[in-house]
Amino acid sequence: MALLVQKYGGTSVGSLERIEAVAKRIKRHRLQGDDVVVVVSAMSGETNRLLEMANALDENAPARETDVLVSTGEQVTIALLTIALQKIACDAVSMTGDQLRMHTDDAHGKARIKRVDDEPLRKYLQDGKVVVVAGFQGRASDNSITTLGRGGSDTTAVAIAAAIKADECQIYTDVDGVYTTDPRVEPRARRLESITFEEMLEMASLGAKVLQIRSVEFAGKYNVPLRVLSSFEEGSTGTLISYERKGMESPIISGIAFMRDTASLTILGVPDKPAIAATILEPIGDAHIDVDMIVQNSMGDGTADFTFTINRSDYKKAKVLVEQSAEKLGARRVHGNNCIAKLSIVGVGMMNHPGIAKKMFDTLGQEGINMQLISTSEIKVSVVVDDKYLELGVRALHRAFELENVAVEENI
Amino acid sequence: MALLVQKYGGTSVGSLERIEAVAKRIKRHRLQGDDVVVVVSAMSGETNRLLEMANALDENAPARETDVLVSTGEQVTIALLTIALQKIACDAVSMTGDQLRMHTDDAHGKARIKRVDDEPLRKYLQDGKVVVVAGFQGRASDNSITTLGRGGSDTTAVAIAAAIKADECQIYTDVDGVYTTDPRVEPRARRLESITFEEMLEMASLGAKVLQIRSVEFAGKYNVPLRVLSSFEEGSTGTLISYERKGMESPIISGIAFMRDTASLTILGVPDKPAIAATILEPIGDAHIDVDMIVQNSMGDGTADFTFTINRSDYKKAKVLVEQSAEKLGARRVHGNNCIAKLSIVGVGMMNHPGIAKKMFDTLGQEGINMQLISTSEIKVSVVVDDKYLELGVRALHRAFELENVAVEENI
Repeated sequence: MALLVQKYGGTSVGSLERIEAVAKRIKRHRLQGDDVVVVVSAMSGETNRLLEMANALDENAPARETDVLVSTGEQVTIALLTIALQKIACDAVSMTGDQLRMHTDDAHGKARIKRVDDEPLRKYLQDGKVVVVAGFQGRASDNSITTLGRGGSDTTAVAIAAAIKADECQIYTDVDGVYTTDPRVEPRARRLESITFEEMLEMASLGAKVLQIRSVEFAGKYNVPLRVLSSFEEGSTGTLISYERKGMESPIISGIAFMRDTASLTILGVPDKPAIAATILEPIGDAHIDVDMIVQNSMGDGTADFTFTINRSDYKKAKVLVEQSAEKLGARRVHGNNCIAKLSIVGVGMMNHPGIAKKMFDTLGQEGINMQLISTSEIKVSVVVDDKYLELGVRALHRAFELENVAVEENI
Repeated sequence: MALLVQKYGGTSVGSLERIEAVAKRIKRHRLQGDDVVVVVSAMSGETNRLLEMANALDENAPARETDVLVSTGEQVTIALLTIALQKIACDAVSMTGDQLRMHTDDAHGKARIKRVDDEPLRKYLQDGKVVVVAGFQGRASDNSITTLGRGGSDTTAVAIAAAIKADECQIYTDVDGVYTTDPRVEPRARRLESITFEEMLEMASLGAKVLQIRSVEFAGKYNVPLRVLSSFEEGSTGTLISYERKGMESPIISGIAFMRDTASLTILGVPDKPAIAATILEPIGDAHIDVDMIVQNSMGDGTADFTFTINRSDYKKAKVLVEQSAEKLGARRVHGNNCIAKLSIVGVGMMNHPGIAKKMFDTLGQEGINMQLISTSEIKVSVVVDDKYLELGVRALHRAFELENVAVEENI
């Protein structure tokens, strides 16, 4: 007997058969006595089909009208799922973002949720109905249709769960949870029963993409327990993301994240003055290049070395800009490397275990893997290595931290 | 400089190229100084595609959710047309039925318009925008989405034209107007410059399907001048439907309508009492069979003959029902004919010309065409003939009433 918000992504509702399977799953929850609000995405491929039409007319189609167009994708899904639910005698009703009064700001295509009026939704729940909500959409102050940007359906689900104080927000997807690392790199990778919001944020931003980062932030902010589950496998409990570790599991390290296709740029011998970083990074930002790690070392002789990493696809463009900055700053030299990868260990447990970083460095050293950059935060350590060592490094760290075993509670 | 409502049907917006052509046409009107509200249907085929998905899930899909589903068809079109308009620097904005505040009753799938709030629309017009409105849809008292039933986009256009007191409501379609008869039967059929609402109603219900009958009624009720035009041919002024004949044209007969696939059933020797018609027609109505012409003749001997016509596809079912009624009523005999067609002449001019019916009968008689039933109203005369004589009859009448010539004003 719980109040659940369940979100099904585009693959989970990608065909009429899959929609019928989702309806059956929802009905089982109803028979168990749960109240259910369902948030759905457009059927897989539909959003792209719609966007292609808009692009064919105008490559810079106006954002307001693009939102009117793509929001039909979710509207089709809510209607079909509600029809499928009623067909199996599971009382249900659909709601668009507008009917839900999902108020957003006016930034079409990337709107942010301002508030959700939970009243119309609660009324339907009280009548014993499953409420099927269109994800990804809302309405602006002038009543026009907005969309939350790609992947925004996760955020819709979390926002509703927060508004109605749901017991859990369940995100159904095509993987059955969050893993200790990518199973394609380390076959012994293991599904985590639970993970904290902070760890999940570090895992997600480091490339282990299971959930939209924004929805995790949102869930953390409103303390909505978030569960990632497979919509294709029955019986798995997925991974629960919350503020506390649940059950017996309390490892120091939760997972190994990594990012391929990385590149670094270093300016050697920059005069060590304030605002060096800003001077170097401003033209990079203006060129819409995302910067990841930033490291600056003072040499003690009035100069400093400055390094940052970017996506490999931006390497050439960024190098030209950095060379211009280097000349302006009177730096000694620029060098770059576009054959690197980033490896990170993530875990809230490391806050109480100062030896963790050393264990990471030792492990990589034993494998003969040289670290070119190191960056640390409270709950993660990231290193940059030659990209040819990526898989080796992931597997070595996974073994060293014994992630293949369910950890026992060791620090009560 | 006029205030126009233009409606484009599914074929007119059936591809991105056609949507671009529609945008260009609208821009020309803007450059002439006209204010334009555009009402669009779903792209041709789209409504059926959506309904097929609903049917695959449930052959009796709930009407509320079917409306949520099919209303996406028009929403896609308003977005695409608005994008195409902005692309050619024609300022435009889209509105759904909900945003337009097109209030309807709660009869999902066949809702009737209650009122249109013209305020949001007028505001956009004052800002110099073309307003692109989704036809066919509205919202019920509980804010759920309704649809007006098939062909309802014409009605949307007329309702908006009435609300904003438009100078003209232009219905763009794949024919360039209303013809004196079907050009496939009589190649000399001629496009009418104008026709009255009453004539159009008789023409439409008699089978010359150009406009949805409901929209013509609606236009007549609110005195909205309606113009039927081709969206593919440039330069034609189409046919204007209003209360007055415009220009030099003032013929007695406006056109020849006909209906194939007709059948008749006659009960001979029914006791001539009140409510005979009701007794016979009630089981027919209960079986959802539409009755067209109804003729009853008292024989003067206390009995009457009663005849009615129906669509040929309902003939067998209706015959069984009529035979049951005949037995109940103690009638002499039932006979039927399922090889007949209906021929009608329509024209407001005949109200002042009593000889018109005779001229019709003489013309058919000269061709050796026997009339099996005759039914008259103020502005039309209909006869039932053997269906093999249909084309011959149409052509003979078209010539006899000189419909191939533009009539000159003869009764000022």
